[in-house]
Amino acid sequence: MKRSIEDTPIVLIGAGNLATNLAKALYRKGFRIVQVYSRTEESARELAQKVEAEYTTDLAEVNPYAKLYIVSLKDSAFAELLQGIVEGKREEALMVHTAGSIPMNVWEGHVPHYGVFYPMQTFSKQREVDFKEIPFFIEASSTEDAAFLKAIASTLSNCVYDADSEQRKSLHLAAVFTCNFTNHMYALAAELLKKYNLPFDVMLPLIDETARKVHELEPKTAQTGPAIRYDENVIGNHLRMLADDPAMQRLYELLSRSIHERQ
Amino acid sequence: MKRSIEDTPIVLIGAGNLATNLAKALYRKGFRIVQVYSRTEESARELAQKVEAEYTTDLAEVNPYAKLYIVSLKDSAFAELLQGIVEGKREEALMVHTAGSIPMNVWEGHVPHYGVFYPMQTFSKQREVDFKEIPFFIEASSTEDAAFLKAIASTLSNCVYDADSEQRKSLHLAAVFTCNFTNHMYALAAELLKKYNLPFDVMLPLIDETARKVHELEPKTAQTGPAIRYDENVIGNHLRMLADDPAMQRLYELLSRSIHERQ
Repeated sequence: MKRSIEDTPIVLIGAGNLATNLAKALYRKGFRIVQVYSRTEESARELAQKVEAEYTTDLAEVNPYAKLYIVSLKDSAFAELLQGIVEGKREEALMVHTAGSIPMNVWEGHVPHYGVFYPMQTFSKQREVDFKEIPFFIEASSTEDAAFLKAIASTLSNCVYDADSEQRKSLHLAAVFTCNFTNHMYALAAELLKKYNLPFDVMLPLIDETARKVHELEPKTAQTGPAIRYDENVIGNHLRMLADDPAMQRLYELLSRSIHERQ
Repeated sequence: MKRSIEDTPIVLIGAGNLATNLAKALYRKGFRIVQVYSRTEESARELAQKVEAEYTTDLAEVNPYAKLYIVSLKDSAFAELLQGIVEGKREEALMVHTAGSIPMNVWEGHVPHYGVFYPMQTFSKQREVDFKEIPFFIEASSTEDAAFLKAIASTLSNCVYDADSEQRKSLHLAAVFTCNFTNHMYALAAELLKKYNLPFDVMLPLIDETARKVHELEPKTAQTGPAIRYDENVIGNHLRMLADDPAMQRLYELLSRSIHERQ
């Protein structure tokens, strides 16, 4: 009987936001998640149930017979657990991590088959995302391993790319601005609106249009608002309104200067 | 013959991003834009042609018989031109401005009928927007004038609200974070990607998901990335990558601290 790629036995090391979304997406595509490891029993159990897998909180108990180990941990936890992850696994096992910020060569000398499987998206456990449009960036220790990882990624997404560790590091830095800092702008707006007893929902059309706009226009061309010409009058008023929150005031000023100076 | 609200003769004072989008939307709904004024002849002519109106660059030539004057100028230009705008107009004329940042009482003592007609959105001449979902915030010197403005706004949008000058000021400040600063995050990401020879388009799914996410989750709950726990390792690497651009580096650091401290 011919085996399909979905028969690949997969172990998930980690049960956080990314691991949860990725495991569920793979499970739905028919992949066999055999086990989930997490240091937190609740997280391990919760994810394992969702994908019909076993779970453990003990690295020594991790199934040594899987073909693919997807390691999705915080950077600091990864460094700490690396030795325990690789120990006792078979020669043919392929070990990948999912971090934009970690170079592939952390695996070097630990296992013969390794790589990176980086889906560039913001993941929260509370929200399902559509994997079809998520760009996956793949790197591996051999072209065969890369091809195998790309085949798996392609079952989930239409956007699968090769990227070396330098490129991935750059993408990750840009993604922090694009997503994490952008979301923080929403959070600061939400904080202000709460202070003024206004609902955040009223901002959603503006949020959506700001995002849609850069599908058509370059972000610099799309820029609007008082900072472009550094309108002293409006900016001065806004800075006074933020006087009770010097940290937000400082951010407002620096961001306005940055917009003005980079026009 | 009964006259409908669309027969209201409207003069546009200003032909910038907001004026252009608003005039075109009104024109499409069947409103009669009788004239466009702009200090720049090219802008005046361009917009006038689009909405089948006359145009002028001389405030003294502005049609004195219109019912509604929509003033959509930069805040500084508005203060400068206010006297010329109100001069020679009829008693029954209704004068409104479209600025989030300018209180209604700038009109006080100049004309008997006045108000504010503020569509909270980011407008660029190069891009058409769907007015149906744009929140309009209305304020007027009388309930009759407010009702009239709300009736006009309602022909364009499903989201028409009353808002006094204080509320509008707060909304405008929040909108600067939500839109202008957010777009600048996209612009900084675009700058980084250009430096690294990577295409900006690869960020679009992340931009879209970041925006969609806050339809479901509060921005604070939606936050992801290295700044939440102030991951020294990732943040340190990113700061080193930005060493050639101290202004961007400083912004990265402040934004990361802000995310961390406001969690």
